[in-house]
Amino acid sequence: FEQRLMEANRRPATTLDGVTITLRANIEKVDECALVKEYLADGVGLFRTEFLYLNAGHIPSEEDQFHAYKAVAESLAPSPVVIRTLDLGGDKPMAGHPHLFPKEDNPFLGYRAIRFCLDHPEIFKDQLRAILRASAHGDIRMMYPMISGRDELTRANVMLTECKEELKAKKIPFNAAVQVGAMIEIPSAAITSDVLAKDCDFFSIGTNDLIQYLLAVDRVNNRIAHLYEPTHPAVIRMLKLVVDEAHKNKIKVSVCGEMAGDSVYAPLLLGLGVDELSMTPPLIPAVKYLIRSMKLSDSQKLAEDALKLTSAKEIFTLCNEFSRMRVKLN
Amino acid sequence: FEQRLMEANRRPATTLDGVTITLRANIEKVDECALVKEYLADGVGLFRTEFLYLNAGHIPSEEDQFHAYKAVAESLAPSPVVIRTLDLGGDKPMAGHPHLFPKEDNPFLGYRAIRFCLDHPEIFKDQLRAILRASAHGDIRMMYPMISGRDELTRANVMLTECKEELKAKKIPFNAAVQVGAMIEIPSAAITSDVLAKDCDFFSIGTNDLIQYLLAVDRVNNRIAHLYEPTHPAVIRMLKLVVDEAHKNKIKVSVCGEMAGDSVYAPLLLGLGVDELSMTPPLIPAVKYLIRSMKLSDSQKLAEDALKLTSAKEIFTLCNEFSRMRVKLN
Ligand SMILES: [Mg+2]
Ligand SMILES: [Mg+2]
Repeated sequence: FEQRLMEANRRPATTLDGVTITLRANIEKVDECALVKEYLADGVGLFRTEFLYLNAGHIPSEEDQFHAYKAVAESLAPSPVVIRTLDLGGDKPMAGHPHLFPKEDNPFLGYRAIRFCLDHPEIFKDQLRAILRASAHGDIRMMYPMISGRDELTRANVMLTECKEELKAKKIPFNAAVQVGAMIEIPSAAITSDVLAKDCDFFSIGTNDLIQYLLAVDRVNNRIAHLYEPTHPAVIRMLKLVVDEAHKNKIKVSVCGEMAGDSVYAPLLLGLGVDELSMTPPLIPAVKYLIRSMKLSDSQKLAEDALKLTSAKEIFTLCNEFSRMRVKLN
Repeated sequence: FEQRLMEANRRPATTLDGVTITLRANIEKVDECALVKEYLADGVGLFRTEFLYLNAGHIPSEEDQFHAYKAVAESLAPSPVVIRTLDLGGDKPMAGHPHLFPKEDNPFLGYRAIRFCLDHPEIFKDQLRAILRASAHGDIRMMYPMISGRDELTRANVMLTECKEELKAKKIPFNAAVQVGAMIEIPSAAITSDVLAKDCDFFSIGTNDLIQYLLAVDRVNNRIAHLYEPTHPAVIRMLKLVVDEAHKNKIKVSVCGEMAGDSVYAPLLLGLGVDELSMTPPLIPAVKYLIRSMKLSDSQKLAEDALKLTSAKEIFTLCNEFSRMRVKLN
């Protein structure tokens, strides 16, 4: 079966009604580019940069980061690579740097990601310059994690503009039109997505965190694991809102959380209007197989039905049956 | 000035355009009933029951709880007393009971409040029976904290129905029509408030937690205190949504978080359509003074303007000026 899947994976991710879906890869190391190619992903939808920092054990220099990002860009060109700026802190502190990342009572609600970066312009701007420089060597795009609203997005973009001007002054090449997106993973960002869309080139929904905050459920706390429900009606409604506001503003929406690589949820996401799915490469064949077995119009009906329901369990059942029926039929 | 405020406090909380606002008290101990009377609160909008548990150092019996609730009910009758069921866990674990409340990595996103209660029916039902029995001795109402959606509300109400039947079988008196509400303090509850409203007699918005989860900001973490913004547009939009859905279903909305007792935010809440404000008793005179200095129609205009803005700071400025102008004018 594995082999049949891998063989089928060579064909495009086109639905029975003829719509081709973009499937990208989530990676965190340069050498994972091999996996991206092996599984025929449409480039990288989420390049986590934390590994560069955690692996080095110190804040990597602009130069070191530039070489890593350039290597990924060149390896995968002309496919796009979406680099997420630093998402350290919270549950991923940097060991040995307690002055940067102090112990917190609720790290998931804490000093992390863009919050840390905006507070440390010297660290953040080293990364922004490295990303910009790499953008001269392939289709590099970038996005900010944990954006909570307009003010943070504006502050991050101001620093980005400063970096662009610095590079320009030094005549260092970069793509001036590099696409910049925001991760939508905090409820307030989803709720104000109409505002954020005006200043973004794309959205990437981080469903893991978004669900966690929407439901106030730590997703690694076993005692309340039953409450972490991706099909909670509030989650579905927020996904719909974000997609609709993005499309009104003519920008695309990707999902890079675990929902994207799960055959139970992927059709629902596509039916809600999500444009791209990004997942760990080994999950691509199964998702592609399902996409090739379904009509997009059916998944749109699925989403419509799901939006009418008021119980997470009912919506889950609907999604589960949708996928099971299609995979069985083939 | 203090004395002038206390004197003015004897007059009703009526706006310049003739609308009288209900101002209730937040308390946690039986003997605080004296404060409720001293500050002329319209009863209690939030009776926190944790103190009974934490003070005893063990789970109090149904009998002990009944006597406490009855004392409050009788002391304040005919004014209403809204009892919140147990909100222990999270940042308020019960010392010496690690088996009930284990250490957690993110207690604010953890095993607390209704989650704990639904998991311990014996503890929860003791409290529910105690509340029901007290309802025979005054205008007792009750509400569940940390409701995340329909399923939890239903499960809690099933246990409540069981308790009612047990009491009926034993011919123990209680108010069969006791009002039961949900706290709206988790984003998913706010987003599905249209669904919850169908099974609630009222809503009480816990703005402290709601803001915290909407923005993913631990409100006691100093490093990110600047991000805890009650006037974030996402917060204002959610408040509006909850109020609108409640009113469509003909139920009332109270706010019992710190925003309710803050003169900067109280007019905005009233303008958004919030029906009742509940606060620690000493804050009542200042809020009442402001209410008596404003028109409700002006606060509705304030809310309308706030909903058009996209920056927390702009909305704060608007609210701040609204209050300052009115207090200065008097
Ligand atoms: Mg995240
Ligand atoms: Mg609360």
